[in-house]
Amino acid sequence: MPTQIDVRTPSAAYTVEIGAGLLANLSERIAALHATPRAKLFVITSPVIWSQWSDRFLASFGDHQPILLQVLSGEQYKRMSTLESLAEQLAQNGADRDSILIAFGGGVIGDLVGFLAAIYMRGIRYVQVPTTALAQIDSSVGGKTGANLAAGKNLIGAFHHPLAVFADIDTLATLPARELRAGLQEAIKAGIIRDHELFSYMEDNAAAILSGNKDALTRVISESVRMKANVVAEDERENGVRMLLNLGHTLGHAIEAATDYNQLLHGEAIAWGILAATAIAQKRGLLTESQVERIDNVLRAYGPLEPFSADAHVLVALTAKDKKNRSGARSYVLPVGIGDATVVRDVSEAELLETTQNLLAGMNATLAEANA
Amino acid sequence: MPTQIDVRTPSAAYTVEIGAGLLANLSERIAALHATPRAKLFVITSPVIWSQWSDRFLASFGDHQPILLQVLSGEQYKRMSTLESLAEQLAQNGADRDSILIAFGGGVIGDLVGFLAAIYMRGIRYVQVPTTALAQIDSSVGGKTGANLAAGKNLIGAFHHPLAVFADIDTLATLPARELRAGLQEAIKAGIIRDHELFSYMEDNAAAILSGNKDALTRVISESVRMKANVVAEDERENGVRMLLNLGHTLGHAIEAATDYNQLLHGEAIAWGILAATAIAQKRGLLTESQVERIDNVLRAYGPLEPFSADAHVLVALTAKDKKNRSGARSYVLPVGIGDATVVRDVSEAELLETTQNLLAGMNATLAEANA
Repeated sequence: MPTQIDVRTPSAAYTVEIGAGLLANLSERIAALHATPRAKLFVITSPVIWSQWSDRFLASFGDHQPILLQVLSGEQYKRMSTLESLAEQLAQNGADRDSILIAFGGGVIGDLVGFLAAIYMRGIRYVQVPTTALAQIDSSVGGKTGANLAAGKNLIGAFHHPLAVFADIDTLATLPARELRAGLQEAIKAGIIRDHELFSYMEDNAAAILSGNKDALTRVISESVRMKANVVAEDERENGVRMLLNLGHTLGHAIEAATDYNQLLHGEAIAWGILAATAIAQKRGLLTESQVERIDNVLRAYGPLEPFSADAHVLVALTAKDKKNRSGARSYVLPVGIGDATVVRDVSEAELLETTQNLLAGMNATLAEANA
Repeated sequence: MPTQIDVRTPSAAYTVEIGAGLLANLSERIAALHATPRAKLFVITSPVIWSQWSDRFLASFGDHQPILLQVLSGEQYKRMSTLESLAEQLAQNGADRDSILIAFGGGVIGDLVGFLAAIYMRGIRYVQVPTTALAQIDSSVGGKTGANLAAGKNLIGAFHHPLAVFADIDTLATLPARELRAGLQEAIKAGIIRDHELFSYMEDNAAAILSGNKDALTRVISESVRMKANVVAEDERENGVRMLLNLGHTLGHAIEAATDYNQLLHGEAIAWGILAATAIAQKRGLLTESQVERIDNVLRAYGPLEPFSADAHVLVALTAKDKKNRSGARSYVLPVGIGDATVVRDVSEAELLETTQNLLAGMNATLAEANA
């Protein structure tokens, strides 16, 4: 039986199902969500995912086959030009307000399709069928959708919840090992912020989780989603506690932007960002040495933390564009324990610069050592 | 004293002020709306409007001047590429979640800026300062924002209400006569749908209204907005009665698309669309001959109904993309009296084609007569 987690917010209520074999009855699962049997269905996916999973995806649809639209995945394609092209294709294929989009893929596909559903005819329905660890653990839940600007990641978007999320653990089997590891960094983040037990489980079971054990993966993904569902229920629009979910994302987004989104995977950039936040928290006396060590060790256990090349000043400058900033003041999420975090607004440019420089120095020393 | 009309919906509550001289204290009016005194303000406008009204617009802002962004107005610029360019400029100028956009211009500017505010950082605040009859009467109120696709007008967008609307009647003085007349067709529409008294007032006072008499204009605009506010309060998301506001828009949008948005003004296309809806209603026995005549006469009094060139089959095919269609069925708004309208779902392609052919034949006959 798959795990079911309910997400309840002021504007939406839906269920996230997590488990193996969900694709086998996807058609029935979707049909059970709505009362518009003649609604056109569109599946939007990437060529890579589709080549691996189309047979299993389509098997249950019988004579009500969804219309297929494909986009390239990768942050560089998460742009308004892609959205516009998809919207034109929806219109050409007769999509109307009753139509339902199915986002079948990783975080980029989920964010794009959710945003497309938010703006096509001012809002239509969609279903998330995430296929990556990142998307199953984090991005498919909570209604945040978006696209990138040249000026920064996810600077445009909308809050638009799916009708449901179906996370089929089986699809992780075809995920490259590096992507699985990077996605799991978001589960570590969930543990650090609010779930000490999840964090400990990930510390103790890294081998099983990383080898793709389905029970272990289902547990990690389910607990991450449960944590997120609770946070989103409390604060749908990110005016308070939801900001904690951005742990590691301020510097993480800056690293992604500075490296043109092509050196690191999202989860890898976030892991570096969590290390930076941890260092700031340690320096401020908010974390004990042993807590810092545990965070550091678990991030590296699910690594390796891939190196990248970027200038510390550029990274700090990029954080000035962070969406959490208000009226010019920088907001920063800091861990204050294992399972606890807080938002501060007084991280100075100098403090952030020093931390970033130390982070880069440590990375480069490790790199030199490895090459020696 | 300006007229104040409250708009109350499940998701927003705001006031529309209509009258002369509002720009003189715009800064104070906007400051009264929010509690973020350090919020950056951005005014987004067109070069034409700005060249005429920048002095009066800026006079009240003192040392908290808004940052100016300019876009060309015209339906051909109401595209995602314009939105993306504006969003990049917002980011470059440090716009954050506290920032407030001011849409200063006609319907295109209002729709674009509202949509931009809806998606920038997943939603920031904005104020409407409409400068055209069309925008003051109709498009600045109700929270519908959007942009065009190649496949059709307003096919992408969002529901996002402004903090307030300030309609300064003075700005209509620099509006070309043709635009004033076209905008007033939307007030006629408001009268036909739900306000017999407004319709009669427009029948009886065409000369004063068209000559720019401020009291007469304030009355027509205020009554149109009041009607729309009531409808939007009842049905914010256009699941029911709000659909009536689309009287004339099914064929109207098709005419605009078929003529590449460059032959007719929006209100002119809508007037043709209302004539078509009236003809269908008459043929179905839903309107008396004298009602048809009154509608026809008042539309022409605020005309002339500019001719256009388009093929009837193309127009009918374009209506298949109308946003009101559900699961493939065409929805159509028909007048059923002066001050009353209804939505039907059984207008056949043949019925619409015949009506459109008659409309074009009548237009061409008038044109031939004028050229004889």
